[in-house]
Amino acid sequence: MTMTTAHPELAVPGALMAAEIVEQPAVWQRLLDDGRAQFAAAAARIREYDPRFVLFVARGTSDHAALYAKYLTEIVHRRPAGLVSPSTMTAYGVRPDLRDTLMIGVSQSGGSPDLVQSLQVAREQGALTIAVTNKPGSPLAQAAELHLDVHAGPERAVAATKSYTAQLLALHLLCDHVVGGDGSGAEVLPELGRQMLEHDPAVAELAQRYRFASRLVSTSRGYSFPTAREAALKLMETSYLSAQAFSGADLLHGPLAMIDPQVPVLTVVGDGVGGRAMQQVLPRLTDQGADVFCVGTPAAVRAASVGVQLPAVDEALSPILEILPFQQLALHLALARGGNPDAPRGLRKVTETL
Amino acid sequence: MTMTTAHPELAVPGALMAAEIVEQPAVWQRLLDDGRAQFAAAAARIREYDPRFVLFVARGTSDHAALYAKYLTEIVHRRPAGLVSPSTMTAYGVRPDLRDTLMIGVSQSGGSPDLVQSLQVAREQGALTIAVTNKPGSPLAQAAELHLDVHAGPERAVAATKSYTAQLLALHLLCDHVVGGDGSGAEVLPELGRQMLEHDPAVAELAQRYRFASRLVSTSRGYSFPTAREAALKLMETSYLSAQAFSGADLLHGPLAMIDPQVPVLTVVGDGVGGRAMQQVLPRLTDQGADVFCVGTPAAVRAASVGVQLPAVDEALSPILEILPFQQLALHLALARGGNPDAPRGLRKVTETL
Repeated sequence: MTMTTAHPELAVPGALMAAEIVEQPAVWQRLLDDGRAQFAAAAARIREYDPRFVLFVARGTSDHAALYAKYLTEIVHRRPAGLVSPSTMTAYGVRPDLRDTLMIGVSQSGGSPDLVQSLQVAREQGALTIAVTNKPGSPLAQAAELHLDVHAGPERAVAATKSYTAQLLALHLLCDHVVGGDGSGAEVLPELGRQMLEHDPAVAELAQRYRFASRLVSTSRGYSFPTAREAALKLMETSYLSAQAFSGADLLHGPLAMIDPQVPVLTVVGDGVGGRAMQQVLPRLTDQGADVFCVGTPAAVRAASVGVQLPAVDEALSPILEILPFQQLALHLALARGGNPDAPRGLRKVTETL
Repeated sequence: MTMTTAHPELAVPGALMAAEIVEQPAVWQRLLDDGRAQFAAAAARIREYDPRFVLFVARGTSDHAALYAKYLTEIVHRRPAGLVSPSTMTAYGVRPDLRDTLMIGVSQSGGSPDLVQSLQVAREQGALTIAVTNKPGSPLAQAAELHLDVHAGPERAVAATKSYTAQLLALHLLCDHVVGGDGSGAEVLPELGRQMLEHDPAVAELAQRYRFASRLVSTSRGYSFPTAREAALKLMETSYLSAQAFSGADLLHGPLAMIDPQVPVLTVVGDGVGGRAMQQVLPRLTDQGADVFCVGTPAAVRAASVGVQLPAVDEALSPILEILPFQQLALHLALARGGNPDAPRGLRKVTETL
């Protein structure tokens, strides 16, 4: 007698998530090869509209991509930017004056009603609206004037991985085109990503270190702060531990008190401005006796308890690579703790909030 | 022989924090009585400047006051608003075009160099700048075109309490004057605050429930989301547990997975728009078997495991009252766990980040 199942890969815990983590360099290559034209067109429309202010609206993992894009907007596009609280335009029914404002909605599924309504309202109120999704025909894509497809292909694991880095790359390519670039700086990413993924066996080993941890903290600054946020969310979703992300500066304004040798710290310390700003934070962690997992420069990894080295890359592109070891950590830690990261308790793939 | 000490109250753990919690209604009364004129003057200047966008810059507890003010700005003042990442104007050295932009810096001490530099840059770049501090002569107060004094009096406990609610009230009074009000709606607060503080013995009892908790989650939506953030920070600072705040909507986009009967949930469910939006979240918490501490309406408190009732009050004013039981909880839990909330490990009163 033979047992059959419609979705054989579901029989292997974490198989979906593992496959989508590995797929990422190919996803980026596809976006660079096939998706580039859409960024030139959207950038031309943005330059014509000439926004004074840029707003982002997103939830969950996509909110971390939006936070990355907020740094890009402030630092590269040089426009003040904000993250919208969707409830103000949905639950509170506010109709603000949004002329001269670019509003970008970011969502894997393009299906959450609060995001759709936020973009609809923004468009009615005079904003230039752009949806960044993985579903061209989705309600969010239809609500916006422009749609950018992140070309990640169907994402089946509940914990988003490839759609996240595809969002980051899409938002980078958009910003680069807005300021007159052609996105060619990102062409190094697929090869560097493949090299980063080779750390998988080492990360699987390191995951054992956190087998019995119930809580941890992640921290970074600047472009890498979204990485700290996303790393924490992946670990919460898959491994059910409390994982809190703080900007390195905010950590010193209070939460540092709860760090002790029993609370592992994950950090990203690259060789750019954000990584240098973390130099103020690392000695304070050491003072508290923290155990530090560092994704960063060789020197930063040597100074930490354990870690994974980052390749030398433009700081603004680094978040696309930095998150890979944390995705692997979330996968392997969930498996080590007997969970199935493809079926986290209490979650579904598309979350509809009002 | 008599023992003497220059600061006798330091001999009693938590005495400073307890005194400052109790002082809050008197602080608000002082701000309402003596501080009102400054809001009328600042509001007149804001109306003359007529900002298109409003940005806030703050760290730690003051960042939660800024988040509250972001909701006020979006919902009452009806201008798009954002929270600035200070590092973009300090570490990254960005000089954005900030004409037509109001930038408000919020800080108890007015002393953190990154906030001072952010306001200086904003002023040079054409923004109307306002500092909201508890120190009129501070560097932040001097860097801004306008200064608003929150009149909290010297704050000596490391965990900010009275300066936080004074910031909330000051930002409410400013916004109310901008839209043509006179702040009289807030006159109910001192008496309601005194009534809320009478729950102290009950909260001290409830604190025992969390004696052995190592992590918890706080959640709310809309105006009360900053309360959830601040409640989490107070508990981290004083009681060294991992306390994570999520907007109710974001909680459903991933972190819900890590909630189980061992992870207490603190929530605020008032009778306004934000409280009604939480009705989507509460059944999901029940499904996960969560233990819920609720500050909210009588019905919400009855449905929770334990809680403290809120008086009926305008939703936009409610955060000034809601935080009181959480401040008491942080104080009593720290004491129950053998700590001294007046001297948290690793922290100083004024945090200087660059």
